[in-house]
Amino acid sequence: MLALAVLGAGRIGAIHAANAARHPRVHLAWVVDPVQDAARRLAAATGAEAGCDPLAAIADPAVDAVVISSPTATHIDLIRAAVAAGKAVLCEKPVGLDFAAARACLRDVGAGGRVMIGFNRRFDPAFAETHRRVAAGEIGRLEQLIIVSRDPTPPSPAYVAGSGGLFRDMTIHDFDLARFFLGEITSVQAFGQNIIDPAIAAAGDNDAGVAILTAADGAAASIVNSRRCVAGYDQRLEAFGAAGLLSVDNITATTVRSSTAAATGAASPWLDFFLERYAAAYERELAAFVAAVEAGAEFCPSLADGVKALAIADAAVLSAQTKRAVVPAAV
Amino acid sequence: MLALAVLGAGRIGAIHAANAARHPRVHLAWVVDPVQDAARRLAAATGAEAGCDPLAAIADPAVDAVVISSPTATHIDLIRAAVAAGKAVLCEKPVGLDFAAARACLRDVGAGGRVMIGFNRRFDPAFAETHRRVAAGEIGRLEQLIIVSRDPTPPSPAYVAGSGGLFRDMTIHDFDLARFFLGEITSVQAFGQNIIDPAIAAAGDNDAGVAILTAADGAAASIVNSRRCVAGYDQRLEAFGAAGLLSVDNITATTVRSSTAAATGAASPWLDFFLERYAAAYERELAAFVAAVEAGAEFCPSLADGVKALAIADAAVLSAQTKRAVVPAAV
Amino acid sequence: MLALAVLGAGRIGAIHAANAARHPRVHLAWVVDPVQDAARRLAAATGAEAGCDPLAAIADPAVDAVVISSPTATHIDLIRAAVAAGKAVLCEKPVGLDFAAARACLRDVGAGGRVMIGFNRRFDPAFAETHRRVAAGEIGRLEQLIIVSRDPTPPSPAYVAGSGGLFRDMTIHDFDLARFFLGEITSVQAFGQNIIDPAIAAAGDNDAGVAILTAADGAAASIVNSRRCVAGYDQRLEAFGAAGLLSVDNITATTVRSSTAAATGAASPWLDFFLERYAAAYERELAAFVAAVEAGAEFCPSLADGVKALAIADAAVLSAQTKRAVVPAAV
Amino acid sequence: MLALAVLGAGRIGAIHAANAARHPRVHLAWVVDPVQDAARRLAAATGAEAGCDPLAAIADPAVDAVVISSPTATHIDLIRAAVAAGKAVLCEKPVGLDFAAARACLRDVGAGGRVMIGFNRRFDPAFAETHRRVAAGEIGRLEQLIIVSRDPTPPSPAYVAGSGGLFRDMTIHDFDLARFFLGEITSVQAFGQNIIDPAIAAAGDNDAGVAILTAADGAAASIVNSRRCVAGYDQRLEAFGAAGLLSVDNITATTVRSSTAAATGAASPWLDFFLERYAAAYERELAAFVAAVEAGAEFCPSLADGVKALAIADAAVLSAQTKRAVVPAAV
Repeated sequence: MLALAVLGAGRIGAIHAANAARHPRVHLAWVVDPVQDAARRLAAATGAEAGCDPLAAIADPAVDAVVISSPTATHIDLIRAAVAAGKAVLCEKPVGLDFAAARACLRDVGAGGRVMIGFNRRFDPAFAETHRRVAAGEIGRLEQLIIVSRDPTPPSPAYVAGSGGLFRDMTIHDFDLARFFLGEITSVQAFGQNIIDPAIAAAGDNDAGVAILTAADGAAASIVNSRRCVAGYDQRLEAFGAAGLLSVDNITATTVRSSTAAATGAASPWLDFFLERYAAAYERELAAFVAAVEAGAEFCPSLADGVKALAIADAAVLSAQTKRAVVPAAV
Repeated sequence: MLALAVLGAGRIGAIHAANAARHPRVHLAWVVDPVQDAARRLAAATGAEAGCDPLAAIADPAVDAVVISSPTATHIDLIRAAVAAGKAVLCEKPVGLDFAAARACLRDVGAGGRVMIGFNRRFDPAFAETHRRVAAGEIGRLEQLIIVSRDPTPPSPAYVAGSGGLFRDMTIHDFDLARFFLGEITSVQAFGQNIIDPAIAAAGDNDAGVAILTAADGAAASIVNSRRCVAGYDQRLEAFGAAGLLSVDNITATTVRSSTAAATGAASPWLDFFLERYAAAYERELAAFVAAVEAGAEFCPSLADGVKALAIADAAVLSAQTKRAVVPAAV
Repeated sequence: MLALAVLGAGRIGAIHAANAARHPRVHLAWVVDPVQDAARRLAAATGAEAGCDPLAAIADPAVDAVVISSPTATHIDLIRAAVAAGKAVLCEKPVGLDFAAARACLRDVGAGGRVMIGFNRRFDPAFAETHRRVAAGEIGRLEQLIIVSRDPTPPSPAYVAGSGGLFRDMTIHDFDLARFFLGEITSVQAFGQNIIDPAIAAAGDNDAGVAILTAADGAAASIVNSRRCVAGYDQRLEAFGAAGLLSVDNITATTVRSSTAAATGAASPWLDFFLERYAAAYERELAAFVAAVEAGAEFCPSLADGVKALAIADAAVLSAQTKRAVVPAAV
Repeated sequence: MLALAVLGAGRIGAIHAANAARHPRVHLAWVVDPVQDAARRLAAATGAEAGCDPLAAIADPAVDAVVISSPTATHIDLIRAAVAAGKAVLCEKPVGLDFAAARACLRDVGAGGRVMIGFNRRFDPAFAETHRRVAAGEIGRLEQLIIVSRDPTPPSPAYVAGSGGLFRDMTIHDFDLARFFLGEITSVQAFGQNIIDPAIAAAGDNDAGVAILTAADGAAASIVNSRRCVAGYDQRLEAFGAAGLLSVDNITATTVRSSTAAATGAASPWLDFFLERYAAAYERELAAFVAAVEAGAEFCPSLADGVKALAIADAAVLSAQTKRAVVPAAV
């Protein structure tokens, strides 16, 4: 049994703790949160000990691995502490909001620090199947990628303020997905939109955006993001190649469709929100982490993947400001 | 050029006349209707002579072929007259409402009488493609057929009164389609419903119905009919075989789909009504008739096909009354 | 906590035991199977005691409820024993293969015997949603129901021999579903097919079939069954009413679709087989059973529902033999 | 009757001539092409006079209007000549390959010169319906537009050489479509790809490309283009707004779908190529032209629309070269 501590008992911590509790080869030892009530409730629901000090859980010699699902600002310090203590780490995205600090962490932690970053979409059954079929050559050389990613409702101004901005907080998923499919990104062109909530503009952030990423081999990705989509959580992808295309559509709760005098073939709104849409992805992500720890295998996506996605996000921010294509910083 | 007379200037006559006028190798000589205004209007629109006596048009030595789109009650007499005059005939379905009279006509006219029956659905691009692919063995041995056929709105009581009833008037299309796919029908089980309009029940007719047809080789067809479907003209078919299934869905005017907070992927109502849904079928039907006349080839669907569909309709009526399976009469 | 014994450790028993083990308010006390190895393996996997005598588990005063997932031939005796011992019962379909015995059981057990029958499809999210929306009047009066139900691959001759035949073993699900939507069935017309495996014909059974069911209010159901469908487990339903139609389509593992030079929009084969397709249904079924036991509420589907479905199956067998419509026996 | 001359008897000229010949209020007077055989064949097929000198046809006082479907290099001179002769003009896209010359033509011809540009996609039933529903406010404020446009097979090197390049020749349709939906474009970011045919790269052109267009109100368009798509002619659009989204999918010849052990719901390749995919669009385009001439109404899309699309194409070329966002030149 792998003894696990979940650091952070918010929405994401709760899903990791529940998946850990269900995993047949995991012992969920600790659920830790400075908000003691949150830690206690989640610990009770998952049969773990509650704690309020992440460093204590990291220091616990009985703990093999930690899941970092605390606020973004704490990620790097906790990664450093956990790696120093010899623990395997699954850390939520993003690694951090400051690229230099993230890169320094990566350099210090090095190859020996076993850190996986929680880019959940790589584990979504549909995206993973598409990646596998592309890798198997089913559509020939991959030439163009289209990613549409829209949240159902915009976040609160408070969330926006600490989020690092649209490109670092939300689009970072798409940047990682683009790298997952296309390999290293050589150029970023981005345009940030303000079309939804003036409060987001007032906070200096965008609430929607579009970007073009290009890869060394000439392939390109088009990314379309929005903080608000009334039809639900819009999560689509299309991989286009020399021999065909593979597309991933949104998910509805059931296959029921209605046909009336007003409309035909009408389905329900798309599954909303990420805990529901990516339930299987989170479960597979944790299972992949556990399997990699058990096997001593390489962690994927790695800390380097997390830092590279952040470099692309920074390039997108700069491109949107300077209106020119930007090469992501080396990692 | 093939000189053609269209006998009957109603809705169906109008579409045949328009298709004839557009056909590059047809000269539309006559449009005939006892209602002189109707004949004149349609003749003017299609560049033909207007007439009021179908027998005069049949007798015209310049006429090579006739399309019979007059009321059902006149079909058999006009077929006999046209065949006697040596003309090729395309006659609308049904051949007639009286099986004995239809069979007698078939026997008298014989193989020499070149008569095609206007079962338009055989010429629908989707149904025809499905038939061709089934015949080519794409889904292996054909085992089950499902036909759903629902009109958008119920006909007037006046129409119902002279229609011959649901099975002879409407389901006859599905009976022919079942024969088109399965070959000769060996048994019919039917259930007539009264669920829409009490006036139709009062007139002694059904306004919906379901039937099971079986073929000599053990294959079966399920047919579902209704006189009213608020979502549009519901015309679907599914051919199921040992190696797969082929399905034909309804048609919408465009591929536009809307996704909102209420529903996703919602298309427009289905194309309504038969002149629109089967526009291509009518055009191909006339082209097939012209090509068969020119080539001296066998007419298909033939007069025998029309009489056989009527035999199945009579079997369905009897089955619905007696609550037992009925073998269609020999033709 | 509700203490539960699962009687029968086969495929279905395994899914019930797993769902029970996961249910937060259930204590899975016993897994019982005369095949001791099977009982032991499943008990170990679900944290239960293994037993080999179902009557001992029924007699255990610590047990509140039993799930009967043993062979069909044992169902009625175990129901009687469990009810006599005051236990709540969830029994797999069919109640039995002999209608008289099943009806006698129902009469003896009476209203006091709390027995639920495992017609899992009523709990499928898509079928249940459709039922709820129909009941809420979304499509007006329900007029026609189409159920397509095809297994991926035919069962072994050994299974067929003890199955009670296609209509009692397989179509019984569709008969219950038809009652679920339409209420009491007043007439059955059925046709049994032999198109797949001569061994099934040799065993005196059908390997495919079609049926028409009618309800007291004039509504009708068309049912299409086959023991073999190469595209996967084909489980569809369409509810048609005065104001529209609701349809349930098959499920694929993901939403990935491929478009190539050969075909566009191609999805994977349909989810195969029932444990996968109806995973959510089995979970919800057990949860509904537990909730009904806890609340002292009526069990639904009830033992009477199970016996009524069997009456329809017997009527279908008789209809297929006699080629006439048959009224199901009173229960 | 409006007397029309078609100048240019190539593929596009042929479709305009056929549509003109079928139009009830058009007299197709001339089909003109310096290649006399081409002119003669098309004139014979459409019942027109054949000519080899476009200026002669323009000078013919019996001619009311001309369709310019000759090579791009001739467009501006023919527009000038036709407007000088007082004829209404429907000119194929693009107006020309040289922006300065096109703008000079627009300034000289002015508002009095009645010139419509053949951006056929505005008349496609699905795109036009989407535009109408967006304009009616169905999806609220329009915020993002995605256009995917891929040809089935790359053009010959000879065609490429004279085409003006991907952005001016192919993407120009998408640029006009973006303006049709979003209004004036304020910035263009583009990336040209070379992934298909080295001969196209050797000729100094791109064979695929992606672009971001932004509008004054903050809305954005993502455009994805390729010269080769093995699944057929890929022509899709998605309009996303505050209250929902409308999407246009590709068209297949029929609704037939196959489900086998290999794949389910598989349709045929997408309708290929533009004469087929946009058959209805070309017919409606000519009808709109005729109606505008008859009514003395404004022509839409106008010559200014054609020049503005060219300005965007030039901006895209410059953006791809300089790797920065470019503001399209004023018109």
